Amino acid sequence: MDAEKIFKKHLKGKLEIKSKIELKGKEDLSIAYTPGVAEICKAIAANPDKSFDYTIRSNTIGIISDGSAVLGLGNIGPEAAMPVMEGKAILFKEFGGVDAIPIVLRTQDAQEIIKIIKALAPSFGGINLEDISAPRCFEINDALQNLGIPVFHDDQFGTAIVVYAGLINALKLANKSFKDTKVVINGAGAAGISIAKFLGCRGISNCDPVKDIIVLDSKGIVSKNRTNLNKYKEELLEYTNKESIDGDLAKALKEADVFIGVSKANLVSKAMVQSMAEKPIIFALANPIPEIMPGIAKEAGAFIVATGRSDFPNQVNNVLAFPGIFKGALESRAKTITMEMMVASAKAIASLVNPSPERILPEVFMDGLAEAVASEVKRYV
Amino acid sequence: MDAEKIFKKHLKGKLEIKSKIELKGKEDLSIAYTPGVAEICKAIAANPDKSFDYTIRSNTIGIISDGSAVLGLGNIGPEAAMPVMEGKAILFKEFGGVDAIPIVLRTQDAQEIIKIIKALAPSFGGINLEDISAPRCFEINDALQNLGIPVFHDDQFGTAIVVYAGLINALKLANKSFKDTKVVINGAGAAGISIAKFLGCRGISNCDPVKDIIVLDSKGIVSKNRTNLNKYKEELLEYTNKESIDGDLAKALKEADVFIGVSKANLVSKAMVQSMAEKPIIFALANPIPEIMPGIAKEAGAFIVATGRSDFPNQVNNVLAFPGIFKGALESRAKTITMEMMVASAKAIASLVNPSPERILPEVFMDGLAEAVASEVKRYV
Repeated sequence: MDAEKIFKKHLKGKLEIKSKIELKGKEDLSIAYTPGVAEICKAIAANPDKSFDYTIRSNTIGIISDGSAVLGLGNIGPEAAMPVMEGKAILFKEFGGVDAIPIVLRTQDAQEIIKIIKALAPSFGGINLEDISAPRCFEINDALQNLGIPVFHDDQFGTAIVVYAGLINALKLANKSFKDTKVVINGAGAAGISIAKFLGCRGISNCDPVKDIIVLDSKGIVSKNRTNLNKYKEELLEYTNKESIDGDLAKALKEADVFIGVSKANLVSKAMVQSMAEKPIIFALANPIPEIMPGIAKEAGAFIVATGRSDFPNQVNNVLAFPGIFKGALESRAKTITMEMMVASAKAIASLVNPSPERILPEVFMDGLAEAVASEVKRYV
Repeated sequence: MDAEKIFKKHLKGKLEIKSKIELKGKEDLSIAYTPGVAEICKAIAANPDKSFDYTIRSNTIGIISDGSAVLGLGNIGPEAAMPVMEGKAILFKEFGGVDAIPIVLRTQDAQEIIKIIKALAPSFGGINLEDISAPRCFEINDALQNLGIPVFHDDQFGTAIVVYAGLINALKLANKSFKDTKVVINGAGAAGISIAKFLGCRGISNCDPVKDIIVLDSKGIVSKNRTNLNKYKEELLEYTNKESIDGDLAKALKEADVFIGVSKANLVSKAMVQSMAEKPIIFALANPIPEIMPGIAKEAGAFIVATGRSDFPNQVNNVLAFPGIFKGALESRAKTITMEMMVASAKAIASLVNPSPERILPEVFMDGLAEAVASEVKRYV
């Protein structure tokens, strides 16, 4: 891509603030500001819930990041994270009609971030946590679920929703059912752990668990024999790796139906794909270089390949989910975004395509996508 | 004013977020978001100063309030403060072309607010503190002057700039000079103390101090004989009340040239105006009811009367200052907004009118106003 063009498009940032009220003379001023605005202030002071009717909270979320896990770039800090947050805000508006304000924080202390977001809450109708590294992202997201407005960490749940949607269609095409499927998830960070929760159907009322899940981190298969697992990986032991196997990715993939990579480039070999069960399903989501290139996976016999990239078929792109998730949450004033809402959203996304191996997910520009997701969110409020 | 109309105009808030980039297809997506955006992230990671070129920081400030001193309504809390902050954001955009993001905080602890604003700083090119009660507002504003981006408490300094501008023209019309003028300031909160600093020319290189200043708080004249003064009132003793008088407003006003009220309704009587020096100048800025109504002040012999209201002549309105102040600060990347910038801005505002007793200040919709202020800010960077 043309770097000069990219820099030019980013000059002075990608967003602006626009008034929805005309300001042509003193009367407009006295409505939008003093003295007229005092009427609204008094009404909200008497009943703070009215802030969801008469302030930007009605349709505005904060996109909050500490810049600790940005794209594939890692811990690049708040200033450098901002262009991503601005881009995300554009996607929220374009695809979901949601106004989103990007906020980057100069702190990576989980408790401090929690405190700051609690203090910021009256400004927003919801909070999208973004690009915060694991395991702090779990701690932060969990601590904020009683904030009174929905808090959603997109890197955990947005990715999981779209993977789940894609998997529904991939398994359908392969004539396999969730309950007979063995899934290997490579990567035990924000996305990997959430995908495991969905596939394990952990405390979720509207889904079916797969037969077994093997999760790997950089040290190998997460098993009971491992030491020094953080508490989020410990929790995985309650519902994954039922046969307590140990070992590496090659071992895990033997006879597996599905590989889901949220890890690093080029970790999966042809031989590994060939060792899988029939009709292997490969979600190689590492960015920008997948765990295995689609062409190589296909040569090795993969039945379906999905990546995170827009230049191959079957792009697993969070934008299929997050605009509709918050659109639905804001329109229904949901106080949290539940796992049930997310599973229902995944099913809705899956149902929008007539699936084929090269098309298990809708295009991001598909009409009605955010509305379909939003209506599932509303159904589960 | 028609309350129904006001509520209707405020429905769903007064602001929206708008993309400055078109998003029509996959190529646009890959520039505004991944993978293209990574180029910008890397450039900023290598040099965080570039965030002022390639993110919204270049033209965006935060308007931050804790809802503790909103308009004349007092401590109404963050949710109820939001409509004022949104209104202010509209004014910033309309008059100064500055994008402003309203943030209301659910904390009134000064040290916590300082910490939060420090963490938020990478998101913004400047911070406008708003409607934070005294004396916490002094502590917060002072603690943030080394943040690397300008932090400006409008209730302190915006008001002081416009009062100073008005006073320049009022004294000119009265044929009085600053150095021979005795000023009484009723109110020792955010605005009162800052006005005193300007008139006393405290550590400011480009102004002349008035002859004497008497400041009163709710207990009377601030003097050396008072006990339990907070440290901001203690500082006043270094340059106000040179004759160490004690007493009430009636006593203070005897032979005074100027009354500046930033206090409460109806505190000034006809007799008090009559006790002042010749050509009394009255700035009765309490809102919505001034310290003395203009008609009554005029009957008592006032030469010039200014209020905070738009329905009388000579409205002292902060909007004459703050949009240009931040426009200039952002365009010049000023790291602080200095007292010299503010005094120069006041002089520029005063110079924009050919003054008469009914017109000591420009209209808020005057063309070129923000530019004139901005160019003074830039001159003193």
